Order: sequence, then structure tokens, then C-alpha cells
Amino acid sequence: MAIPYPRFIGSEQPTMEAARLGTPPSAQSPPPVNLTQEELKKIAAYKAVEYVKSGMVIGLGTGSTAKHAVDRIGELLRLGELRGIVGIPTSKKTHEQALSLGIPLSDLDSHPVLHLAIDGADEVDPHLNLVKGRGGSLLREKMIEGACEKFIVIVDDSKLVKFLGGSGLAVPVEIVPFCWKNTAMRLREMFKDSGCVAKLRTCGEEAEPFVTDNGNYIIDLYLEKDIGDLQGASDAILRIPCVVENGMFLDMATTVIVAGKKGVEVIDKKFRANGGVRLLQPLEVPVSTLFF
Amino acid sequence: MAIPYPRFIGSEQPTMEAARLGTPPSAQSPPPVNLTQEELKKIAAYKAVEYVKSGMVIGLGTGSTAKHAVDRIGELLRLGELRGIVGIPTSKKTHEQALSLGIPLSDLDSHPVLHLAIDGADEVDPHLNLVKGRGGSLLREKMIEGACEKFIVIVDDSKLVKFLGGSGLAVPVEIVPFCWKNTAMRLREMFKDSGCVAKLRTCGEEAEPFVTDNGNYIIDLYLEKDIGDLQGASDAILRIPCVVENGMFLDMATTVIVAGKKGVEVIDKKFRANGGVRLLQPLEVPVSTLFF
Repeated sequence: MAIPYPRFIGSEQPTMEAARLGTPPSAQSPPPVNLTQEELKKIAAYKAVEYVKSGMVIGLGTGSTAKHAVDRIGELLRLGELRGIVGIPTSKKTHEQALSLGIPLSDLDSHPVLHLAIDGADEVDPHLNLVKGRGGSLLREKMIEGACEKFIVIVDDSKLVKFLGGSGLAVPVEIVPFCWKNTAMRLREMFKDSGCVAKLRTCGEEAEPFVTDNGNYIIDLYLEKDIGDLQGASDAILRIPCVVENGMFLDMATTVIVAGKKGVEVIDKKFRANGGVRLLQPLEVPVSTLFF
Repeated sequence: MAIPYPRFIGSEQPTMEAARLGTPPSAQSPPPVNLTQEELKKIAAYKAVEYVKSGMVIGLGTGSTAKHAVDRIGELLRLGELRGIVGIPTSKKTHEQALSLGIPLSDLDSHPVLHLAIDGADEVDPHLNLVKGRGGSLLREKMIEGACEKFIVIVDDSKLVKFLGGSGLAVPVEIVPFCWKNTAMRLREMFKDSGCVAKLRTCGEEAEPFVTDNGNYIIDLYLEKDIGDLQGASDAILRIPCVVENGMFLDMATTVIVAGKKGVEVIDKKFRANGGVRLLQPLEVPVSTLFF
């Protein structure tokens, strides 16, 4: 790809210099770089956009990390490095961003199968299960990212957790507003063994309920302990009548790109098709670390 | 109960007269009565209201059969036969009906546990699983009727089916409007082995999408064959991101009252509590037939 990475990628120089001096790369320490969280997000985003090829239908994520990927796709289109891309935005906000960048857009009704989606995540567990939706777009994200052949998740290393909910931040649940207190009570009761606190998400000085792009509310679940069987928990949440969707993205990510102080990790989860239904199966998890 | 049944209940006279003449009831043929479907619905509704006691919190159903039950509760309150009832309506329409009858109303947030709910159904299978929601109120109905200690379903005998979907009419699914064509496609694909046709519900001369009380759309599924594992199918439907709820009410009815040409059947499904979670278990299904 002809377009250079952001300037801070130049920090790979110490390793290159050592190589010229004859010191084997394996004996080198990772270079001393001081990158901000924002720079790490940008590195992960740029790495993910390397997977985008001309002619692809691409799911465009929402949030501070995904925004860098959308910007990068717009830049490559403008420079003629990519052509014939169709973007499917996961939120009204991303729709506006992509429009302003001149990325041609469509929707799932016209393009029910996507080649690739790139999005951030709020948490990534060791099995590449995710928490998403703290930005409030979990429903459209799950719909679009569940319809793609490859789903690349881009995060900085602060998002890696031992179990979903383990960051102490919320696992969001999108619900119909009708009798939301009752739904919150049922969610809290369902996960009381994990020390669950369930709070309506609010916004503004008046603490009005936050309203999603679909006109729904969000209940944020705060968990003290691992909830165990994630698929069982997800199904139980979905069985509560007023629940529309939850922010656990299970067995959906096919690649996770993690940017940290020491480099970028690309973690692939292989999958195979089974009778027309995409069944993700963790066969192996090769990790390549790209020092810069 | 001092309030008389509707006049057509007077058709129990032949049996009573025969009893006075010394003929054993078992030797009597059912009386020759010609009741309309509307009259049968009313009989089932009146029978159900016999379970309502003063001071109860009652879920008030929606639809042509449930309407008779709400009317009857209003009548008994007005006549002083019932007191201290609190009604939780399952739709805006029932809310208005109950208000006009002077039934005191509340909601699930104030009364998270109900003593009893009475509602109609579109289909009842041999295990007392139901299809509901052809009236478009399935979400609120499922929320309220899932929160009650006893759920009485009232139907005329045309609603009895061998399997859910077996009447040839629709199994409704409430969905978020966003990209509804994609959701319909996924539902059709999911049940293609059962010959599924999935149609957006429309209304009016312009065939505009029907919009539920919650601002959602309805996809009606038409099935040629039994879909088999109902709980598995329900969970699979709920996992589609834009699905809010489906019209299969599984293991929820505790009593079904069926009015037919030959009489009223009261079918009870006993249940027991398990660790605070209500677990319905079919222990026995006693049937009492009350000839009129």
C-alpha cells in the first residue's frame, strides 16, 4: 500500500538500525515508544484497512477507533488506492462521517452479504468474544457485523479483559422503553449471582433517558464476576420480552487487531461453513506481532 | 357468583330438567345448541372471570375474546361483586376499554407481579403452547402474561391446532423497522424447511407497514409444516438482531378455557416454583367439561 502510516510509525527505526549493525532482530528489545491511546487506536485502524480491497462491500463501524478506519478508507478512495467500495454504516453518526468523506453508501436490504466489517469494541475476552455498544449502536452493529464474511475488530490493549464485564464498565442491553423499570429489575435479578447492577443510560444535564437510533433505551449492566456460560446468558437476556439486543458479540469476530505499547497483534480465529450457516469454530489462534 | 351468564347459557335447562326426571346426567346427550363463534368466545371469557377475586392485580388481554372478559370484569365491579381490582392492560386499546369501564389501572413498574392474566390466543397446541399477536400486541402481552402467577387463555374451539402455525394463519414476529427486508429474509431462510413465507404486515388502502404500540413492525410467518423444537426455534428467532419478540408463547398458559359447540373445557397445566424462577412443568392435564 503506497500511503504511508502515520508519522509515529517511524519509531521502527531503532530496530532497523540495529539490524544494519549486525545484531539479530531477536536480540533486540522492543523500541521505546510513547504512544497515546488515540495513536494506538489509529495504528489498529490503519492495519485493519489493509484488508480492504477494491470492489468490496464494507461494514463501517461506530466509535472513536472505528472512526479512524472510516477516515482511512475515505483517504484511500480519494487518492485512488481503493475503487468501487460500498460502505454500510452501523449508525447515523458513521453515515454522516462516511458521506462527508465521499464513501458510496448502501444498506443491508440492497447488500445482504458483506465482504468485511471493521469496528472497535469495548472489551475483548481471550476467546475473542466482545462487549460492544457503549456508544449506543449495538443493534445495527450486530446486524451488519453478523452479515459479513470477515469481521475485523480493532482495539488498543486497554480493551483486553479476562472475562466479559471484567473492565468494570457496562455490558449494554437495548430495550423497548415500555415499562423499562420492570425490564431492568428482571435483568438485575437474572445476574444477581454476579453482583449485577442495572442502570438506565441517561444523557444531558436533566439525565434524560439516552435514546438509540431505533428509538429504544439502553440498560447498562455492571458485573462484579464472570457470568459463566455466555451463550446461555445471552439467550436468557433475549427471552425477556422487552429486550431487543444485548452487547455481547459472541463468536462473531474473525480477526482482532490489538495495538499496544510493544506493537500490533493480529489474532485470527478461523471458521468454517456448516450447511449454509456460518459456524465459527476456534481451530487455532495464530498470533503475529508486528513491531514498529 | 350472583351475576347471570349471558342468556344463551340457559341452554343448560335440558340437562337440569332431565336430572329432575331422574335420568342420570351421564345418559344425557349434550344439548342441541347453535352458538356463534362470538357467543363461544363470550362463554369462555365469562368462565375465566370466575377466577378473578377481589383485591387481585389482573393482566387484561387484547383482542375480540379478551374484550368480553374485560367487559365482564367492569360489569362485576360496577355491580359491587368485585372490589379492589387493579388492571394491567396489554395494549393501548385495552387501556382505553378498561378506562371507559371504570377499571382502576396500573402498570408493571408499579405491580411487577400479577395474580392473574386473562387473554385470548390465535392458536393453542396440545401442550398448551400458544400463538398470539395477530392483533399486534404480542410484546406487551408476553411481558405482562409472563409476570403473572396464573395465566388463563380463553378461546373458541376453532383455535385448537395440532402444531403451532397449523391453522395456516401467521406466527407474528415483532421487529425493529431498520432494514426489515433483511430480517424478513433471515426469518424465511431460518424456516425454509417448513415451507416458510415471511410477509411484512401492512394496513390501510396504501398498504403502509402496520406499526405496533412500540413503534415496531410485524413480520408474519406462514408455515406449511411443524417447525419441531419450539424453544430452539424461538431462541433462534430472538438471536436475529432486529427481532424484538415472537408470537410463540411457550409454557406460559396455566389454564386454557375452550368453548365449543358441546360445552366448555377447562384444561389446567400445573406448575411449580424452582429457585425463585417459575418453572412450568406439565405434571398432569385434568380436563373438566361443563355442559350447558
